[in-house]
Amino acid sequence: MTYQPTSADKFTFGLWTVGWQGRDPFGDACRPALDPVTSVHRLAELGAHGVTFHDDDLIPFGASQGEREAVVKRFRQALDATGMKVPMATTNLFTHPVFKDGGFTANDRDVRRYALRKTLRNIDLAAELGATTYVAWGGREGAESGGAKDVRQALDRMKEAFDLLGQYVVDQGYDLRFAIEPKPNEPRGDILLPTIGHALAFIERLERPHLYGVNPEVGHEQMAGLNFPHGIAQALWSGKLFHLDLNGQSGIKYDQDLRFGAGDLRSAFWLVDLLETAGYDGPRHFDFKPPRTEDLDGVWESAAGCMRNYLILKERAAAFRADPEVREALRAARLPELALPTAEDGLAGLLADRSAFEEFDVDAAADRGMAFERLDQLAMDHLLAARG
Amino acid sequence: MTYQPTSADKFTFGLWTVGWQGRDPFGDACRPALDPVTSVHRLAELGAHGVTFHDDDLIPFGASQGEREAVVKRFRQALDATGMKVPMATTNLFTHPVFKDGGFTANDRDVRRYALRKTLRNIDLAAELGATTYVAWGGREGAESGGAKDVRQALDRMKEAFDLLGQYVVDQGYDLRFAIEPKPNEPRGDILLPTIGHALAFIERLERPHLYGVNPEVGHEQMAGLNFPHGIAQALWSGKLFHLDLNGQSGIKYDQDLRFGAGDLRSAFWLVDLLETAGYDGPRHFDFKPPRTEDLDGVWESAAGCMRNYLILKERAAAFRADPEVREALRAARLPELALPTAEDGLAGLLADRSAFEEFDVDAAADRGMAFERLDQLAMDHLLAARG
Amino acid sequence: MTYQPTSADKFTFGLWTVGWQGRDPFGDACRPALDPVTSVHRLAELGAHGVTFHDDDLIPFGASQGEREAVVKRFRQALDATGMKVPMATTNLFTHPVFKDGGFTANDRDVRRYALRKTLRNIDLAAELGATTYVAWGGREGAESGGAKDVRQALDRMKEAFDLLGQYVVDQGYDLRFAIEPKPNEPRGDILLPTIGHALAFIERLERPHLYGVNPEVGHEQMAGLNFPHGIAQALWSGKLFHLDLNGQSGIKYDQDLRFGAGDLRSAFWLVDLLETAGYDGPRHFDFKPPRTEDLDGVWESAAGCMRNYLILKERAAAFRADPEVREALRAARLPELALPTAEDGLAGLLADRSAFEEFDVDAAADRGMAFERLDQLAMDHLLAARG
Amino acid sequence: MTYQPTSADKFTFGLWTVGWQGRDPFGDACRPALDPVTSVHRLAELGAHGVTFHDDDLIPFGASQGEREAVVKRFRQALDATGMKVPMATTNLFTHPVFKDGGFTANDRDVRRYALRKTLRNIDLAAELGATTYVAWGGREGAESGGAKDVRQALDRMKEAFDLLGQYVVDQGYDLRFAIEPKPNEPRGDILLPTIGHALAFIERLERPHLYGVNPEVGHEQMAGLNFPHGIAQALWSGKLFHLDLNGQSGIKYDQDLRFGAGDLRSAFWLVDLLETAGYDGPRHFDFKPPRTEDLDGVWESAAGCMRNYLILKERAAAFRADPEVREALRAARLPELALPTAEDGLAGLLADRSAFEEFDVDAAADRGMAFERLDQLAMDHLLAARG
Repeated sequence: MTYQPTSADKFTFGLWTVGWQGRDPFGDACRPALDPVTSVHRLAELGAHGVTFHDDDLIPFGASQGEREAVVKRFRQALDATGMKVPMATTNLFTHPVFKDGGFTANDRDVRRYALRKTLRNIDLAAELGATTYVAWGGREGAESGGAKDVRQALDRMKEAFDLLGQYVVDQGYDLRFAIEPKPNEPRGDILLPTIGHALAFIERLERPHLYGVNPEVGHEQMAGLNFPHGIAQALWSGKLFHLDLNGQSGIKYDQDLRFGAGDLRSAFWLVDLLETAGYDGPRHFDFKPPRTEDLDGVWESAAGCMRNYLILKERAAAFRADPEVREALRAARLPELALPTAEDGLAGLLADRSAFEEFDVDAAADRGMAFERLDQLAMDHLLAARG
Repeated sequence: MTYQPTSADKFTFGLWTVGWQGRDPFGDACRPALDPVTSVHRLAELGAHGVTFHDDDLIPFGASQGEREAVVKRFRQALDATGMKVPMATTNLFTHPVFKDGGFTANDRDVRRYALRKTLRNIDLAAELGATTYVAWGGREGAESGGAKDVRQALDRMKEAFDLLGQYVVDQGYDLRFAIEPKPNEPRGDILLPTIGHALAFIERLERPHLYGVNPEVGHEQMAGLNFPHGIAQALWSGKLFHLDLNGQSGIKYDQDLRFGAGDLRSAFWLVDLLETAGYDGPRHFDFKPPRTEDLDGVWESAAGCMRNYLILKERAAAFRADPEVREALRAARLPELALPTAEDGLAGLLADRSAFEEFDVDAAADRGMAFERLDQLAMDHLLAARG
Repeated sequence: MTYQPTSADKFTFGLWTVGWQGRDPFGDACRPALDPVTSVHRLAELGAHGVTFHDDDLIPFGASQGEREAVVKRFRQALDATGMKVPMATTNLFTHPVFKDGGFTANDRDVRRYALRKTLRNIDLAAELGATTYVAWGGREGAESGGAKDVRQALDRMKEAFDLLGQYVVDQGYDLRFAIEPKPNEPRGDILLPTIGHALAFIERLERPHLYGVNPEVGHEQMAGLNFPHGIAQALWSGKLFHLDLNGQSGIKYDQDLRFGAGDLRSAFWLVDLLETAGYDGPRHFDFKPPRTEDLDGVWESAAGCMRNYLILKERAAAFRADPEVREALRAARLPELALPTAEDGLAGLLADRSAFEEFDVDAAADRGMAFERLDQLAMDHLLAARG
Repeated sequence: MTYQPTSADKFTFGLWTVGWQGRDPFGDACRPALDPVTSVHRLAELGAHGVTFHDDDLIPFGASQGEREAVVKRFRQALDATGMKVPMATTNLFTHPVFKDGGFTANDRDVRRYALRKTLRNIDLAAELGATTYVAWGGREGAESGGAKDVRQALDRMKEAFDLLGQYVVDQGYDLRFAIEPKPNEPRGDILLPTIGHALAFIERLERPHLYGVNPEVGHEQMAGLNFPHGIAQALWSGKLFHLDLNGQSGIKYDQDLRFGAGDLRSAFWLVDLLETAGYDGPRHFDFKPPRTEDLDGVWESAAGCMRNYLILKERAAAFRADPEVREALRAARLPELALPTAEDGLAGLLADRSAFEEFDVDAAADRGMAFERLDQLAMDHLLAARG
């Protein structure tokens, strides 16, 4: 198999990923700026389906209206020429120092208003370019010290902001839904809505919950030591997986943004297995940073690797699910039994069933092995193509 | 000040806390079993308000009906004699090997039915003893490997279980609400509903969401590197802080269950500040394990320390909030501005306001310092009683 | 390929691994005790090379001299019958509550003396059974609170203990070296000699440093977020890799002891690559715990999986190293240049070399890409057998 | 008490700490550049003893010889005017992209030579300014992927570099020792010599071990979840605590560099207790970053807070050690017994002592409580000034 991606695979990349110049907390930029038009063409050649962007990735912060239009025109031409799509866009509310205490939840009211206006403006562009998802990562919404933020008030402000954005999208008749991206920390000591769960819970308190879902990122959940496929499963179960960010992370540490497939490989396998079997049909969006060690050749190697690794894992997960021995092992592990209701006989039936409690042989039930190790070894064999 | 607790402080302890015999993954029990009646008397003397229990803490697993009644009678007598309350109870769905793959989400349907019946039975006792909160910690609901659990189906089973329990409580007319206790891992590799956020989100998918809230535990959130006061703030904001477990944890590692005040002291300060200013009026429940190094004298020292530390922190947080210089520092940090709506003028007003965007002086706004370090140092001075 | 282990692969297992009954901090034993003789036979059938043991794994704590002799005799017969070896033994200084504050560094002097005597006794047995490595895991040498242990004095006691043990081995003429096993925490809040580095440094302060090396365990280093192959590389570089414990761990959390290959798979690949290319010729020792979900069939599946996974990774690492494209990629990444001395011209030469500083084109050097992403993708392709 | 620092307290600050402009992975600089001369004056006014610097903090990268001399002259004048000292200096081998793969262990030999020359040059300046400690933080010495670095060869290069530097210092007759600063990760995925232990072990393989010690940083060890006072204790025990970096960190996450006293407060208490009782007489050096939220007023508040917090903790630790009840509690916890040799009777005595093993009452010994909880509560009471 060649693992050559095509547009049908729906692989998308943020302009800021391949365009990352390598500025980190301890070092200066080590790569030249990339023209977004170059990125569109190059990613199209590699087999990508589309690109995504923060407002400032495409249009330099502070550009005049004329510059803005010229930039957008060139960008559109590149999209048209390559057939590349823009399924998602987002706002940069973190780079400029004005956002040092946040955007929607900054203590300063004028900063909050500015953040909302900056977002509304880019929503127009997102809709114009055909995006159907608008991501919101509130990376500066948080604090380093306990007195600096009244979290309940900050959540009020966060709700106010999202409700306003929702109203705007409805008023404008845009076909656009919001995807909130959680992250536990960095660049703030603690960030609000730190995990998939917190974001899902927050959405339920908004005025129009159906307009909002989540945009989970592999590394962000793993920075909290959480199981990413488990989080994605809960998002899917809640009907809220609107988008996702694929990358790699080596455990609980700073945000690494490695290419997809680097970091926790077994978790990546189970993630792809889940996405491919659960009917998720949105973009497979890569949000990674080619390491500073790479020049531009390395950047494109790295981008190609993201897609290649997804396709390899997709092949392996499909083989795992198709293997009759795996199906037998799933039965031995009683997965089919988990799919059955616990009490289709209802509360009354359960209470009346003496075999469920009074006559239940607890010790005999305890003696049954779950046969999970055999199942997991079969998964490992398929992941590594070591069967047969 | 003497920091002597009284019943009005609402300090409660699980029977399993002082009663922990010290069995750990690498060592045998090092303390004798404690009679629950002894614990009730001793904790009452120390100034506690009440106790809580898992079914098996009070009534030995497998006890006959007669034994059960005798145990409950003695326990009630101790409560009556001391004035101690039982505000909360819970079910042990983790110690017996029958629960090795979980209770409500075990792959085995008969185990799930047994778990539900065991819970229902103890709900009756909880109601009988006057508890108004029923905690559910699903410590075995999870997996070590990706194929062993279909998480979406497991969440279906979890929902089914909680809906049934809710129906039962309504049917019986019990004045009892459920509090779900999240934990990220241990004893399973990954546990379902790993954080406050995941539990809050799950609750919104239940049939009677108003019956369910959360029971967050200090150490459990800190095992995921999360800011505990932030999580509590979101639970309060969601109207879902039904109960909580106070203890100590030294960062991301195994579940330590240190006494309250040990572990992250600054976080404990902000937690007490939040609970005392947010109007939380439930029990201050300690769920800790006196270290194995202690004999019974050390157990009671440790229990007394939990309460003492809460009272010290309460005093310091109150002094912090009352200090005029702190109030001025909060103003300088623009906390009062965070309390103001961002756009009381609505979307139209915001869009029409040129000062919000077109004429906003971004750089000038960026230059304003937030003065958080001064505020945090004042907090530290109050915490350490180092003012003046 | 069949990945069928043979004795030549030098795979060894602790009796306590397959023999673990599943007692964890929240649950009772869920498997019956295994007769060590059964384990020897069964592991031999699976292709293992030998077994290892703590004194109490083989001879029940408190056994009489007669019982002891009978046990050893039966054990020897099993070894003889199967050809299984005992390359390593160790002491249990953690299960009995007498060790709740440690063995060699317990505050109580009589406990320290008892710990030493218990160790000396088992060293005799180890030597008698032909072991050449004696492992020391000081799992209880540590503290939960800052005042409880004077760490410098504790290190004095630790040194005293190891110096005495070293003297004993020399006095007795045993062909036995010590391997110290580091661990950062659990069951103590913090354990002394928490990482490979701390143990290596400690050894240099002993009377006979050549007698002591390390026994690193995959999961123990990963519990501190450290790169295990890097740690092994430093141990090898120091001439101190006397033994090692192979298992799996999913990040920074409680000690999981998963089977080898579970947890961080990429790290396992690089570990096997290192061991197989660095000339390490000691046992490949598995120190894992079959999950509680398993019955005895699952235990043996799990043990077999450890060996199988090692052999798969060994095959993949060999293919990686043999691939001409990999060799070319290593050159492109300048690995051969890292092997060259930086200044074979000495300090004077370096200082006189204007091309090294005054005339060095810093920016041109900075522009060179390192080509690490391509190399890492090749590694991933080999790991997953996805080349060609 | 006023907690007003004086020069005698030996508080020192890196120029890069107060001078940090707030550039982080997600945001641009938010504070103006600070003239080092301003920093010297301002820190002197606050009560500091001295400053430290990387070459590029003082002399802009690429400055001409004339610029260099002018800068040094102004700097010296500021030192003379204020009486401020320069006890330590260090090299920046991480900001310029030429160091993207490291300095002493870069795969590129010419980069390694350049790094050495850059270091040698600044050693001259350090010596000229009277520094007696030269710190080496190898923040870029590491890798993100397993094939990119042969760690054993990298350690050879690291040894070669340090041996050369040592030779230079000896040749020049400088009164200067090296202090290696460990860090586990960030900005590299994994950094070589990740902990205090690894650095201590490495030093023992150098040609002149006595010239090298460690410069541990609070946050760096805590990023690996390690107990910082324990690490410092082992460094002291090894005679290798040449210098240290004080700051704050909230657990395992990105490198926060909070002011000293923020983060883990209890650990800070035990650290100060250790430094003040162990006879450490070097500088108390702060290596922190005033949060981006602060303007310059906040920067100086933050710097002042570092010193104030140290002095508060010093006062509390002294009170703890002076309290007769604490001394009694230490006896009850058998700390004095830990100071006694385990076997002053030697191996023969120990082996002959039947009370040590054959007649030792294990269960009775196990029953003794260690009384650590009481001791720790006394420590907490002293830390919080809550005694009496």
